[in-house]
Amino acid sequence: MKLERKDILGIRDLSVDEINLILDTSESFLEISTREIKKVPTLRGKTVINLFYEASTRTRTSFEIAGKRLSADTINISASTSSVVKGETLIDTALTLESMHPDVIVIRHSASGAPHLLAKTIRASVINAGDGTHEHPTQALLDMMTMKARKGRIAGLKVAIVGDILHSRVARSNIYGLRKMGARVAVAGPATMMPLTMAEMGVEVHHRIEEAVLDADVIMMLRIQTERQHQNIFPTLREYARYFCLNRRHLDLAREDCLVMHPGPINRGVEISPDIADGPASVILEQVANGVAVRMALLYLLTGGKA
Amino acid sequence: MKLERKDILGIRDLSVDEINLILDTSESFLEISTREIKKVPTLRGKTVINLFYEASTRTRTSFEIAGKRLSADTINISASTSSVVKGETLIDTALTLESMHPDVIVIRHSASGAPHLLAKTIRASVINAGDGTHEHPTQALLDMMTMKARKGRIAGLKVAIVGDILHSRVARSNIYGLRKMGARVAVAGPATMMPLTMAEMGVEVHHRIEEAVLDADVIMMLRIQTERQHQNIFPTLREYARYFCLNRRHLDLAREDCLVMHPGPINRGVEISPDIADGPASVILEQVANGVAVRMALLYLLTGGKA
Amino acid sequence: MKLERKDILGIRDLSVDEINLILDTSESFLEISTREIKKVPTLRGKTVINLFYEASTRTRTSFEIAGKRLSADTINISASTSSVVKGETLIDTALTLESMHPDVIVIRHSASGAPHLLAKTIRASVINAGDGTHEHPTQALLDMMTMKARKGRIAGLKVAIVGDILHSRVARSNIYGLRKMGARVAVAGPATMMPLTMAEMGVEVHHRIEEAVLDADVIMMLRIQTERQHQNIFPTLREYARYFCLNRRHLDLAREDCLVMHPGPINRGVEISPDIADGPASVILEQVANGVAVRMALLYLLTGGKA
Repeated sequence: MKLERKDILGIRDLSVDEINLILDTSESFLEISTREIKKVPTLRGKTVINLFYEASTRTRTSFEIAGKRLSADTINISASTSSVVKGETLIDTALTLESMHPDVIVIRHSASGAPHLLAKTIRASVINAGDGTHEHPTQALLDMMTMKARKGRIAGLKVAIVGDILHSRVARSNIYGLRKMGARVAVAGPATMMPLTMAEMGVEVHHRIEEAVLDADVIMMLRIQTERQHQNIFPTLREYARYFCLNRRHLDLAREDCLVMHPGPINRGVEISPDIADGPASVILEQVANGVAVRMALLYLLTGGKA
Repeated sequence: MKLERKDILGIRDLSVDEINLILDTSESFLEISTREIKKVPTLRGKTVINLFYEASTRTRTSFEIAGKRLSADTINISASTSSVVKGETLIDTALTLESMHPDVIVIRHSASGAPHLLAKTIRASVINAGDGTHEHPTQALLDMMTMKARKGRIAGLKVAIVGDILHSRVARSNIYGLRKMGARVAVAGPATMMPLTMAEMGVEVHHRIEEAVLDADVIMMLRIQTERQHQNIFPTLREYARYFCLNRRHLDLAREDCLVMHPGPINRGVEISPDIADGPASVILEQVANGVAVRMALLYLLTGGKA
Repeated sequence: MKLERKDILGIRDLSVDEINLILDTSESFLEISTREIKKVPTLRGKTVINLFYEASTRTRTSFEIAGKRLSADTINISASTSSVVKGETLIDTALTLESMHPDVIVIRHSASGAPHLLAKTIRASVINAGDGTHEHPTQALLDMMTMKARKGRIAGLKVAIVGDILHSRVARSNIYGLRKMGARVAVAGPATMMPLTMAEMGVEVHHRIEEAVLDADVIMMLRIQTERQHQNIFPTLREYARYFCLNRRHLDLAREDCLVMHPGPINRGVEISPDIADGPASVILEQVANGVAVRMALLYLLTGGKA
């Protein structure tokens, strides 16, 4: 089976069949990174550009490693060293890069919708590596891959997502994906961080973490962007942590085999207590490992590979 | 035929035969970037260092892609993360890099003449990727390649170059090249942006864009470096645009099949009106595509390849 | 013979046999960088991450070239574009990168001990590329390689190390290595830049450069970190240079065939007078060339290669 689309812009656009195809392909790529020789010639002679307008270690490195293990030529462009400082529009940057014949452009941008603009403008495939507060589809795919690997299924799981739901592209992409795949989603967070549209998305809304995590199969903690403190969204980190930092007491309310997830980087003691982050329920590092596999799978599928 | 020189420092040094050799070789490399597998083993085991003391997306990316498609090992060094901050001299940086046995060093530097200093200091080949207000030879080569591909020749064309002639290394390199190749060159720009030496270079000088573009086969718009506004060279962008922004009315004065070129990145509505930039006369994106081919050709020729 | 250790964290931990193994292997790798095709498939499919929390041209470039000439996939991460800005701990960064299955992580960090923390945390090999004022083992190895290549031996040489001994990780690593290998070490520098523990390290302490360099086989000048001027460690660069800048008069006190070394980048006229830096006694550029070979050897040995 082939992926019949040019771009991966969001989970909202993907069908259940497409998500399953990506997850299955990702699983088959997982093993390559554990080989003695972690490299296959699949994408030899393909060009992948990582166009990052926001700082990122894990996502950029994950894509770069994915590309290189598939033998693609990978090019990194970061906003600080790019024509962005010269005021070129995104469309002109896109058309310029397109003229150099890349096969895939991976874009992270602070503006929601930037990857869509890019995708409409160019013939190359576009992968959204996070756009504003909109979507972060590869994160949701690696999250779902992790759940499926651990639980054997996604349908029927109860997934609690906790934190700054309003500003989280990770939450949004996961909600779209998990609902499509038949999971039950409960969210919790401060009222100032909760969008009004949650109910429409088929999600249970709670304001106390205790309610959301009750009988959960998976607890997904979101990253607090501490820079938002100055926007009067929450008073202090300490107060946030008092109510929403995942601890042992919360975990005891969930199912016994509950998984704890976090997209990283972690603010220890703010979103998650260190004993939980490092404890047996945590699958945070499996998420990272699966991230490389998901990105390999997407690069492969978008450049014409079959599952 | 072989290129019998170590470095590409400027168009001024090149003979007509050398320019023709480079353009012909570039044309033969153009096709590689459109293949399914965009990679040839020509430069396997060669080391190309991109040493950029000024920010650049397109030029650095173009060189990096050129190197990788030829299978060279490419290393990027940007001033902001380099020993430059520790105050090392350019010569010491050059000798240090030379000791690591690179085959080619591509340098962009804000100081005119920096590539020449580098070239005199080291045995590796040096390509000037833009030095101060002096030369930008790979840009002129890709510009001439684009004219030749579209017009079948360079000799006898009338080329109008419009904008900040004084500070433009693109203009300077093109003037040298176009005059050598037998084109007629007319320039136009504000008086404060016009060097006194233009006539000596065999160029027609105009102060109104309308005069320069009359019956032109090619109109080449230059980039306005908006940071120069504060140097009292021109009062406002709006005033500049009123007199020198290329529009439909100007284009109607040129030959019917006139090409519009720009080295990018574009300031839309300042140097060129959007309808012209995106219209049928514009070959701006072909310039970018040809840029990769020119850089592949130069890397190939300088490391011993024959045309 | 194989290197029976996971990491290279400092020279202090290495046995004489290990140092000899590394130096012999380095010497055999030196030739690869002078070939027409400077590339061997030895590390194909291995992933090397260069994790640099401090700016560096020569060390990062040297490691990157070493990795690429061995056909490893090399990934650069610099602090300014990384999750560091998001406040992630070093251990969390380490575990995240580890989950992407690198074979070697090369780390430079301003905190002494950071590479040890990394090494304890992850299964991948760690190479210390300089940590705070602690150690810079690859620099000492390339220095010893250079001495051995030129003098045929290290045992019995008198090596004078001059400058800011207190803050120099280069000095510390060299003192450990040279003492192990049987060299006699004399140090000289301003009293404010001299640690109290030198005598315990088996080193002769002088406060005048003339005394240290007397009959020396090798003079190793250290880099002055000019940012320390504001810490009242020394009054002015000029005063420092008056007493400690290596000149012809000093060199005449040393043995006739004395080598002059410097880890670079050089502050000409501060640590070393230009005629000495560029003169026949200087082996500064050989040090750089040997640096690539040492790093190739370490990448090779740590990933399971035999000498």
